[in-house]
Amino acid sequence: MYVKNKTIRDPIHGDIKFEDVFLELIEAPEIQRLYNIKQLGFAHLVFPGAHHTRLEHSFGSYYLATKAGDILNLKKDERKLVSCAALLHDIGHGPFSHTLETILRDSLNVDHVDLTEKLILGKHAIFDNEEKELIEPLTVFDILNKHSIDPKDIVKLIKGNTKSNKYLGQLLNSAIDVDQLDYIIRDSYYTGVAYGIIDIERFLQTLVLHNNQLAVKKKGVGVVENILMARSLMYSSVYFHKTVRIAELMLSKAIELMKNADPFDFFKFTDDELINDLKKRRDFQKEIAIRLKYRKLFKQAYTLSKSNVDAKKYKEICKLDNIHLRRRKEEEFEEILKIPKGHVIIDVPYTELHQSEPRIDSTEIDILDEGRLKKFDEYTPVSSAVKSRNIPDWLVMIITDESHRNVVSKKAESILLK
Amino acid sequence: MYVKNKTIRDPIHGDIKFEDVFLELIEAPEIQRLYNIKQLGFAHLVFPGAHHTRLEHSFGSYYLATKAGDILNLKKDERKLVSCAALLHDIGHGPFSHTLETILRDSLNVDHVDLTEKLILGKHAIFDNEEKELIEPLTVFDILNKHSIDPKDIVKLIKGNTKSNKYLGQLLNSAIDVDQLDYIIRDSYYTGVAYGIIDIERFLQTLVLHNNQLAVKKKGVGVVENILMARSLMYSSVYFHKTVRIAELMLSKAIELMKNADPFDFFKFTDDELINDLKKRRDFQKEIAIRLKYRKLFKQAYTLSKSNVDAKKYKEICKLDNIHLRRRKEEEFEEILKIPKGHVIIDVPYTELHQSEPRIDSTEIDILDEGRLKKFDEYTPVSSAVKSRNIPDWLVMIITDESHRNVVSKKAESILLK
Amino acid sequence: MYVKNKTIRDPIHGDIKFEDVFLELIEAPEIQRLYNIKQLGFAHLVFPGAHHTRLEHSFGSYYLATKAGDILNLKKDERKLVSCAALLHDIGHGPFSHTLETILRDSLNVDHVDLTEKLILGKHAIFDNEEKELIEPLTVFDILNKHSIDPKDIVKLIKGNTKSNKYLGQLLNSAIDVDQLDYIIRDSYYTGVAYGIIDIERFLQTLVLHNNQLAVKKKGVGVVENILMARSLMYSSVYFHKTVRIAELMLSKAIELMKNADPFDFFKFTDDELINDLKKRRDFQKEIAIRLKYRKLFKQAYTLSKSNVDAKKYKEICKLDNIHLRRRKEEEFEEILKIPKGHVIIDVPYTELHQSEPRIDSTEIDILDEGRLKKFDEYTPVSSAVKSRNIPDWLVMIITDESHRNVVSKKAESILLK
Amino acid sequence: MYVKNKTIRDPIHGDIKFEDVFLELIEAPEIQRLYNIKQLGFAHLVFPGAHHTRLEHSFGSYYLATKAGDILNLKKDERKLVSCAALLHDIGHGPFSHTLETILRDSLNVDHVDLTEKLILGKHAIFDNEEKELIEPLTVFDILNKHSIDPKDIVKLIKGNTKSNKYLGQLLNSAIDVDQLDYIIRDSYYTGVAYGIIDIERFLQTLVLHNNQLAVKKKGVGVVENILMARSLMYSSVYFHKTVRIAELMLSKAIELMKNADPFDFFKFTDDELINDLKKRRDFQKEIAIRLKYRKLFKQAYTLSKSNVDAKKYKEICKLDNIHLRRRKEEEFEEILKIPKGHVIIDVPYTELHQSEPRIDSTEIDILDEGRLKKFDEYTPVSSAVKSRNIPDWLVMIITDESHRNVVSKKAESILLK
Repeated sequence: MYVKNKTIRDPIHGDIKFEDVFLELIEAPEIQRLYNIKQLGFAHLVFPGAHHTRLEHSFGSYYLATKAGDILNLKKDERKLVSCAALLHDIGHGPFSHTLETILRDSLNVDHVDLTEKLILGKHAIFDNEEKELIEPLTVFDILNKHSIDPKDIVKLIKGNTKSNKYLGQLLNSAIDVDQLDYIIRDSYYTGVAYGIIDIERFLQTLVLHNNQLAVKKKGVGVVENILMARSLMYSSVYFHKTVRIAELMLSKAIELMKNADPFDFFKFTDDELINDLKKRRDFQKEIAIRLKYRKLFKQAYTLSKSNVDAKKYKEICKLDNIHLRRRKEEEFEEILKIPKGHVIIDVPYTELHQSEPRIDSTEIDILDEGRLKKFDEYTPVSSAVKSRNIPDWLVMIITDESHRNVVSKKAESILLK
Repeated sequence: MYVKNKTIRDPIHGDIKFEDVFLELIEAPEIQRLYNIKQLGFAHLVFPGAHHTRLEHSFGSYYLATKAGDILNLKKDERKLVSCAALLHDIGHGPFSHTLETILRDSLNVDHVDLTEKLILGKHAIFDNEEKELIEPLTVFDILNKHSIDPKDIVKLIKGNTKSNKYLGQLLNSAIDVDQLDYIIRDSYYTGVAYGIIDIERFLQTLVLHNNQLAVKKKGVGVVENILMARSLMYSSVYFHKTVRIAELMLSKAIELMKNADPFDFFKFTDDELINDLKKRRDFQKEIAIRLKYRKLFKQAYTLSKSNVDAKKYKEICKLDNIHLRRRKEEEFEEILKIPKGHVIIDVPYTELHQSEPRIDSTEIDILDEGRLKKFDEYTPVSSAVKSRNIPDWLVMIITDESHRNVVSKKAESILLK
Repeated sequence: MYVKNKTIRDPIHGDIKFEDVFLELIEAPEIQRLYNIKQLGFAHLVFPGAHHTRLEHSFGSYYLATKAGDILNLKKDERKLVSCAALLHDIGHGPFSHTLETILRDSLNVDHVDLTEKLILGKHAIFDNEEKELIEPLTVFDILNKHSIDPKDIVKLIKGNTKSNKYLGQLLNSAIDVDQLDYIIRDSYYTGVAYGIIDIERFLQTLVLHNNQLAVKKKGVGVVENILMARSLMYSSVYFHKTVRIAELMLSKAIELMKNADPFDFFKFTDDELINDLKKRRDFQKEIAIRLKYRKLFKQAYTLSKSNVDAKKYKEICKLDNIHLRRRKEEEFEEILKIPKGHVIIDVPYTELHQSEPRIDSTEIDILDEGRLKKFDEYTPVSSAVKSRNIPDWLVMIITDESHRNVVSKKAESILLK
Repeated sequence: MYVKNKTIRDPIHGDIKFEDVFLELIEAPEIQRLYNIKQLGFAHLVFPGAHHTRLEHSFGSYYLATKAGDILNLKKDERKLVSCAALLHDIGHGPFSHTLETILRDSLNVDHVDLTEKLILGKHAIFDNEEKELIEPLTVFDILNKHSIDPKDIVKLIKGNTKSNKYLGQLLNSAIDVDQLDYIIRDSYYTGVAYGIIDIERFLQTLVLHNNQLAVKKKGVGVVENILMARSLMYSSVYFHKTVRIAELMLSKAIELMKNADPFDFFKFTDDELINDLKKRRDFQKEIAIRLKYRKLFKQAYTLSKSNVDAKKYKEICKLDNIHLRRRKEEEFEEILKIPKGHVIIDVPYTELHQSEPRIDSTEIDILDEGRLKKFDEYTPVSSAVKSRNIPDWLVMIITDESHRNVVSKKAESILLK
């Protein structure tokens, strides 16, 4: 019997095959929209190859989920759920992926996972009416229903909440899941930063189910050490590269300073639509859009790293974790130094990083050793090393435009800590 | 003495180093704009990894030109010229690279090389006034002058017109030049199509100067065979992939049907700016923009391949090479079958391909064999095979939207050949 | 249920899994012996990375055969046969793989396929009595019988003689079979010569069964063109590299000049055992062994390429295809120029190449195009180009030791053509 | 002017160029012999691709030394010294590289570095008289003298003893040197174990000289973390793989039990010559040779890992570090259990590992941070993690042949700890 299918070529995993419900899902507007969302926000400003998108990453996660399902010999139904969840786990991403999440969390108290949930459950639509009319789409929600897959089950997996079958959630959302496996190696490929070349095949081969949980066989300790180090190195050298961060801060500030804007609208935007929206606005928003187009970025005027700071200063700076205090401080700079609104940005990244990326230093992995589950941490000092690495390596950074750099630099300490 | 420099990581060539004039050129707006122009137009609709841009390709060409200069032991001045030309050779590209060239050639009688020339000579600007005011840019023209490099010399190299030092032009524009070396391997990397993995290092090592010309040592015949085949295979499987072509035809049609539009304005656009401009317009233009966003492409309704066509039909179809006849025929379809304007597109690609890519089957390479230059063609039958491969593999294709596919399909032959 | 299995890491294909009969076969002495037989004879003298062995290649062929069986959805029994045949197809190789085949063919009228057959059918043993006693091996023949696999069926596949199921033999022995796919990419990997980086996955995905035959879908034409060119380029640049050839000729001459030696004994040897046997002998044999150890090779004294030869000369030289005439000519050189026995070797490689590698320019592939099988040659000029490329690029070569190089060089033409 | 040179293709580094003194050195018998010495002893018994030799590694080290010399802008003389030292640093290796070092250290109190020194200084010859007569070689010592390079300077670099120019020694012998960079990536390539894919280019670019010492710029901390982890993972998964270790122990035992053998003679042997020498001897030696040929290895009968051992047992076992006590214990096993001589081998690897590989957990690297040298350990917890990882993961292992496995297994604890 001939089964209709489609093969898509991926530079990382080779041919990826779709059939059945997946053949329809990849045509859904929520999925196709993702090729307009860059995986790494503004990383291409530093690593010019990094233009890859959430679409490829979603395909890659689907591929790995399917492979894991084969290796673990899951039941047919479970496989379908896991692969669906992997394919759909990122459909709620707004423009430039993680870039705007802090603002959204602050103003709406939602993040991309909540939006993913809303989309899967059919409670929210990613397209506007004009688009809807023209393309008459079957949404993800429609397709899941048509194939008798319960959207709620998918959401549970994506959130890692699968009580009865804990391993399913762990495949999607745990210390090492298919999402991370794909992005570590993919981001490495497109940035050209070799740290992320991990041995995914070997890792998957060491997976095992035990007492309803996902675990790694003892012989897999080495490959887990390797993956955790790779992830940590990718964070410090790519995801938290200072220049990338500067571009993200600029865009966030442009959004933050917009009047009467509905954050939900921004979330629907693709990367390009957001930038073009900014261009149509005035002054600061337009300025930021043009600056990003030509890579005329703000510059560091002041930076403090953890190692150069005494306890008192440290405490003082940590207060700026609070976004409202931070904004007030930025305004203080602007007032005192007569700098136009939006041109001083203070970054205190540590808390934010751990909110948006709770898995960054997670090492909660079970090792199956002679029939018993033990903690990965018992096997290697690499586990604690990964947890205590400093990412990012600055405690606070102040950026501004070229023309105000010197004055901000000189006054930074006095204004910041007064 | 400390020389200021900057290193950029490229996934293909590794670290690429810039200093001196190049350090300034890579900040010029004409160069930075290129990271907004996709190298392969709409290839990412078929090969989801292919989001790479003209910027990376320009860096890669610069890298190879610099390396070739070292290997050939060129004079310092010549090296600087060759590397400049390689870095700048694509700054005149409009949105989606080659996609709109046919339209431009038709309406303005210019192509991206002419525009590159205009930009380098300072006769045209890539940015508008608002942008100019804000970023106060040093243009490529300004920077070259500041460093006492004659822009006209750069243009000569890019066009391959270097009478006194023929080899310089050959490095930039000949049967195998640094431009092609970079794009073959780069497009292979980002699409995941392995055909283009060529041995650039070995090729460069076999280059030699002889009588003011660039030649390849006899031991390099194999690597040349390999590169020519790779190029040919990349054309048939990637550059002239039917689905990619369909997206390109849709965009071209949207531009073509626009009233009162200045083609020069379109050329300045980045990819995103063009799409967003279409979205703001009505009906057909907006439809195409939304279709491209969600990948709702037109479909093949009719295709003829060379091998299935008799001499009479062949002659008839070749008449449609003429863009005006072709448009009239499209209108005929629309009138007879009552299809909305723009929804029937006829593609007769062969002539167009050879106009926009005259190097596609060029094998004009000199081999240095015991002190004498001979033609590459004398050494291997691969040369003629490359020239006679059929690219693309269709003589004519008619596309339309899903709802009119059947009717166009049925009537195609009768209307087309009447 | 737990199935016993073993995973072996291969740098080319990743993890290769063995279970059931294969778990025993890989422990058989005929298979384990292969890690003592270099895949490319003396290629490591030119490409220092090329120390890989017939064992890895056998594992790789097994892997690809298994994968092809999955993709073609073969019956369980057929898959087992194909995978067995792939694993065992090279067990009859003597020391240094193809190096000594000409001599064996001349003196015994057998080649490595005949010996493979004898071993699989249990008619010949690869080990001597002492070895047998110590390791008490289950031979390949024993294991096949234990698992109720008919050794004769395996032999048929290896020879490509499978009338009732033609496709099975084609997987193992045809214009493109799993053996070739593996060695092209493997030899490329270990030599560092990039020509052989072929897209095996894509090729396998285009395979299809039709009328009991193996065919390639039309969309696979490009990948076939790529593989055939890759194979041809590997022949000219690696397998028929002149320096590699010189080392092979030296070893062959040492064997040829041995008195009272049983060729069968040489065939059983591993690479090292053969070299050590030569070292224990006198004069010429010992000299060759020491020369090979320290890479003190004979040198070219005279070479004629096809393109520099007129019809008369060509005819004259082709007579030397006959090994007896060639040996007489070598003795003539030695007598006239007073050179020690064995120090003049004449190479006329063309015929020999095509005897030992009948697949070198085969392009007999069926393309399935709209339900009908057509010849690959109808689709592309690359097919005929591959057939007519000159491999090797010399018609005749005479080699000798450094000290006699000049005199042989001077007299070569007159003695050779008199 | 034409400079004679030779280019060799390496799968790792691409084309490696030799000219001047290096063109002669690569023809020296001490260098050519190295293609007969496997880089990783018996690793190919587990990782079938790992047949690479000390020759390729020497070429690779030379390549990296030359590159480092360029990047650090060393003086011409210094570059030549560093590149010479890198090319020659392993010429003193005996058969199967590190496999027999323990025995040699025990009986002769020398290791491969001492022998390398002797060869470079012309105090010892690697070939016998017959060989010498035939190939009339220029030795390394001859060539260095001919080119007015002081062999003693080379030896100092290899040993890391360069007081006046400390950085030269550090390039060759320090916590991260060109030797290690090459073997980590090379062993990764040939085994297919991905851990060792390190970013050598980036590392070299971060090197800097400061106060006569070699240091790493602060931005290089990440790449150093990556390299140290890679090295540590390669040790645990490849170099100290249990099965590889078993083969090495078997060979060592065969040598140890030989009567009247001159260890120096063994050192001169190539891999093959040693195995063939064993085959000519009786009983145990011959048995081991045949077992290795067909991969019929001894098996683990008993293993204790650090984590399962109390303090008392630990102390008891550590006594077996002493080779004489260990041998007595082995004999005890053989006597009590009536097992033939040589068939019980006790491995207590920890001390031995750190003797033969003092760099295994070294992290002594200086970081140049704002003009001052600081210790690498201050920057990252990865440093201490690397030092405290357990390599190998067994404290003691007892191996024997298949037929005695059960009995040894049962009695192991009682005999071992009595």
